[in-house]
Amino acid sequence: MPERREIQLKPGERIDELQRNGYGIIQNKGAFCFGMDAVLLSGFAEVRRNESAVDLGTGTGIIPILLEAKTEGRAFYGIEIQEAMAEMAERSVQLNGLEDKVHIVRGDLRKICERDPALLSALPLPADVVTSNPPYMKAWHGLANPDDSKAIARHEVCCSLEDVCHAAAVLLRDGGRFYMVHRPQRLPEIIAAMRQQRLEPKRLKMVHPFIDHEANMVLIEAVRGGNPGCRVEKPVIVYKEKGVYTQEIYDIYGY
Amino acid sequence: MPERREIQLKPGERIDELQRNGYGIIQNKGAFCFGMDAVLLSGFAEVRRNESAVDLGTGTGIIPILLEAKTEGRAFYGIEIQEAMAEMAERSVQLNGLEDKVHIVRGDLRKICERDPALLSALPLPADVVTSNPPYMKAWHGLANPDDSKAIARHEVCCSLEDVCHAAAVLLRDGGRFYMVHRPQRLPEIIAAMRQQRLEPKRLKMVHPFIDHEANMVLIEAVRGGNPGCRVEKPVIVYKEKGVYTQEIYDIYGY
Repeated sequence: MPERREIQLKPGERIDELQRNGYGIIQNKGAFCFGMDAVLLSGFAEVRRNESAVDLGTGTGIIPILLEAKTEGRAFYGIEIQEAMAEMAERSVQLNGLEDKVHIVRGDLRKICERDPALLSALPLPADVVTSNPPYMKAWHGLANPDDSKAIARHEVCCSLEDVCHAAAVLLRDGGRFYMVHRPQRLPEIIAAMRQQRLEPKRLKMVHPFIDHEANMVLIEAVRGGNPGCRVEKPVIVYKEKGVYTQEIYDIYGY
Repeated sequence: MPERREIQLKPGERIDELQRNGYGIIQNKGAFCFGMDAVLLSGFAEVRRNESAVDLGTGTGIIPILLEAKTEGRAFYGIEIQEAMAEMAERSVQLNGLEDKVHIVRGDLRKICERDPALLSALPLPADVVTSNPPYMKAWHGLANPDDSKAIARHEVCCSLEDVCHAAAVLLRDGGRFYMVHRPQRLPEIIAAMRQQRLEPKRLKMVHPFIDHEANMVLIEAVRGGNPGCRVEKPVIVYKEKGVYTQEIYDIYGY
């Protein structure tokens, strides 16, 4: 287990344990904190030996850091539009001594759609894997303060579902894989937005809080230029009973 | 419980019990027999008081007969392209004394897409509900004999997924509901074909043979002209252990 670096925390920040390789992550309760969504996506995504992976809208950097811990990938990139979040994610990378493998890139993913040369040159092109835990809600759904860090993470203020799929298609090699976690409410739109970009959904996994509740998350793997043909895997059930996780959730959290 | 009529059976035919209202259905082992798919679709579909329902590719007539038993709908239609199947379905309607409410219509559903006046005049337009348990497989997938009754039921020889969705959209009123059962492998294509016809998927239900197996059927409700927004309901698990159905399956079979 690598020793942790000394990292300066800012007011409101704390270090949370990732229960993997002894890694920690810096979070700020006043800003957006990662949820089970990001952990489940990291468990669902596959990065193979020597592959490169780009996370769109990386926030705290949780997904590249967990993927580095879990896989034998070569390089992990996280793009983040909010300067304060990017800076905090960078300190989490330093905290775990991962500067050689995990790179936080400041940028607006919509500029990938426009093929902005400066942003593209900071990324591993073409990428083998793209991941995203994007904002789930339409920009105008009950939005109090669109400048707020949480609002940007949760609402489509800075990017739409279509933007995220478009950016993934620009970054990926043919046959490369795109992994997304989202709300089942949006599933038909997600599938349409992916296919619009020739990202063919190949694997779906529903997440149900309890075995007898409707799903509240969906995990999707799409392949750039893939042929139609999709598997719906066994569902993830989060709680065995109120307050008690299923073994599967313990396994995913501990890898 | 209504008394059953005396119906002449042909060689190879038998009467199977439907465990509902004392109804029976005629099947022929040499032809296509209905499966759990049709029973689950009838359980999933909603037909409200006084509504009309049309089943596309009705085969034995199982879906209109089960929906008549289960709901307070006004009229139930089943379209079937194969004369021998249509004739057998008609005798099942007579067997249960349902001639006033269940109508078997000979016809090619592709003619609905062409708005063929003769076929449309035999149907309740606009319909409140359309159901379909269509062929699951592409026409060319390992097909020995394309004239065979089983091949027509299982392979897209006489109609494609796009044809079925197109016909549903022609028949339905705005706000009317389309219910389909299909293979998860085709789910992205299904969603695309539905949205192409302004049939918005609103409710999905996965069917898993066991809790830890991938899904082998998917049930879908789409609303003509509906707004985006989909629920993924709790999954159906078929077997508790090998050879033992879950209570849910017993409930659906017995309604």
